[in-house]
Amino acid sequence: MPEIIHDVVGIGNAIVDIIGRCKEEFLVKHGAPKGRMRLVEAETVSKLYDDMGPGIEISGGSVANTMVGIASFGGKAAFIGKVADDEFGRIFAHDIRAAGVVFNTKAAQGKTPTARSLILVTPDGERTMNTFLGVSPELARSEVDADLISSARIVYLEGYLFDRPEAKAAFRQAADIAEKSGRQVALTLSDPFCVDRHRSEFLELIRSRVDILFANEAEITSLYQTESFEEAARLARNVTKLAVLTRSAKGSVIFSGHKATTIAADRVKNVVDTTGAGDLFAAGFLYGLSLGKSIETCGRLGSLAAAEIISHIGARPETALAKLAAARGL
Amino acid sequence: MPEIIHDVVGIGNAIVDIIGRCKEEFLVKHGAPKGRMRLVEAETVSKLYDDMGPGIEISGGSVANTMVGIASFGGKAAFIGKVADDEFGRIFAHDIRAAGVVFNTKAAQGKTPTARSLILVTPDGERTMNTFLGVSPELARSEVDADLISSARIVYLEGYLFDRPEAKAAFRQAADIAEKSGRQVALTLSDPFCVDRHRSEFLELIRSRVDILFANEAEITSLYQTESFEEAARLARNVTKLAVLTRSAKGSVIFSGHKATTIAADRVKNVVDTTGAGDLFAAGFLYGLSLGKSIETCGRLGSLAAAEIISHIGARPETALAKLAAARGL
Repeated sequence: MPEIIHDVVGIGNAIVDIIGRCKEEFLVKHGAPKGRMRLVEAETVSKLYDDMGPGIEISGGSVANTMVGIASFGGKAAFIGKVADDEFGRIFAHDIRAAGVVFNTKAAQGKTPTARSLILVTPDGERTMNTFLGVSPELARSEVDADLISSARIVYLEGYLFDRPEAKAAFRQAADIAEKSGRQVALTLSDPFCVDRHRSEFLELIRSRVDILFANEAEITSLYQTESFEEAARLARNVTKLAVLTRSAKGSVIFSGHKATTIAADRVKNVVDTTGAGDLFAAGFLYGLSLGKSIETCGRLGSLAAAEIISHIGARPETALAKLAAARGL
Repeated sequence: MPEIIHDVVGIGNAIVDIIGRCKEEFLVKHGAPKGRMRLVEAETVSKLYDDMGPGIEISGGSVANTMVGIASFGGKAAFIGKVADDEFGRIFAHDIRAAGVVFNTKAAQGKTPTARSLILVTPDGERTMNTFLGVSPELARSEVDADLISSARIVYLEGYLFDRPEAKAAFRQAADIAEKSGRQVALTLSDPFCVDRHRSEFLELIRSRVDILFANEAEITSLYQTESFEEAARLARNVTKLAVLTRSAKGSVIFSGHKATTIAADRVKNVVDTTGAGDLFAAGFLYGLSLGKSIETCGRLGSLAAAEIISHIGARPETALAKLAAARGL
């Protein structure tokens, strides 16, 4: 078995974000569900883009953001995801590598473009995502590098990958490899609508394969179709070693067996853009976990990273998280 | 003669900025002169990009930024500039139109890509630009729309256009049309190195055609090859109706005939990225001028816009300048 050289290897969609501001009316006009992610076709992307205000392009993708966060803490991260051989593909590959993340998945040569997400930020800082997956789901099973997966303590899987059968197969294969190599499997549910689309498969996967589950309030209640967070949390804690449940400004609760640890959210004076808050919480948590820190420290690292990301536009850190952690003595 | 329907029409390079952070050593290693703009070839762009940190893509271009600033104040602006039919070209066109600027120059269909500028921001907030002009200088004389030029009170020309003979011809033609239509001609010197490359032509142009000259301290002393700012300023005031000279944190001095008006720079708590400071000063000033405001008010509008732009990444306003101006009673 290969030795451990990475803290975490992530598998997810390789996306460039196009972030712009809009008023609530704009979301209503375009039927975009506020605060959520919806999958759209190329045509809808064009229409929305033509109508939206000026944008800023920043590399994104949920698990990709998490891997960049881990690298920003000083951790060793790798990413597997599919881009096309086009301008956005070059931007994605450059940015993730320049952030210190190992990224070797080959760019596809066909005409399908690199994935993009039009992210609309309302005046309250909430983000609404309209994602065109493009070439991203064409990640083949053969591209899930067994050696790379086994080289990391934890493999971290993006729920969004379930939205396309091709990517789902790659996803399952990664979980298989990790399990066989005795590595830990972490999963983020990604989005309540995504959970809704694949509930039974997620439930089965969590029960049988997942060691560490990341979900926010909307996702976990969607998964278990419960009214209350508490009830959903109770169900989650029974089936995973670690359930990391985030609740935005209310902080997070982490269940480890029957022990519950509550972590307060870090205060942010001016919430600019909530894109990536969950991704970066996961970065801090997984980084702490890979170092063997206490659950409480892991949670505090998560809160710190989430607070950094929502204080500016985009889901990639602007300040080295290692520096922020050191300043807090974490 | 067409009636006036625009406040300002600008002609300049159509560029997408790729902005990243770096330490001073990085500039030294790559021979990039700090605080300046240098023209580079495609190969150098690739090399620099491979070596630099993660970037953010934001539409830019000096005069294009100014036109967006004018629109953000509520003014009517149009832009003439050349992009290619590629991803960056689409981004540029979308962003400038979405900002409310009229932009109808056709995208080139060849293989030469849209211009890009790798902008490296050092910890002091100073920006160093490495620009690959790509298709931008292919703006043809036939594309300088006489009706559009005559439809604006002021035509604003980018000094950087002098760097390629094709664009220079378009530039001269625009000045001709404006002069014949009795419109005002404004020019920005763009950069001290650019001035150095084309000194005699700039001197001739300013003497014969330019009504309003924009320059910073380095540019105006480069133009007149003087040691002191005061001496250069004295020479400038003798040849233009209006000389608008900016001095970074020291504010600006505007010479109108023999009257000098001094404007203080607006205080900025945290200078994040100085990209676009001069462009946005020009936006406020030209907007005020087109409304017939006093020189002092024009200068204060310029300072306000410059302060907004240096408080965040990128050279396009994040807050509506009309709102900021109203809050100040301007």
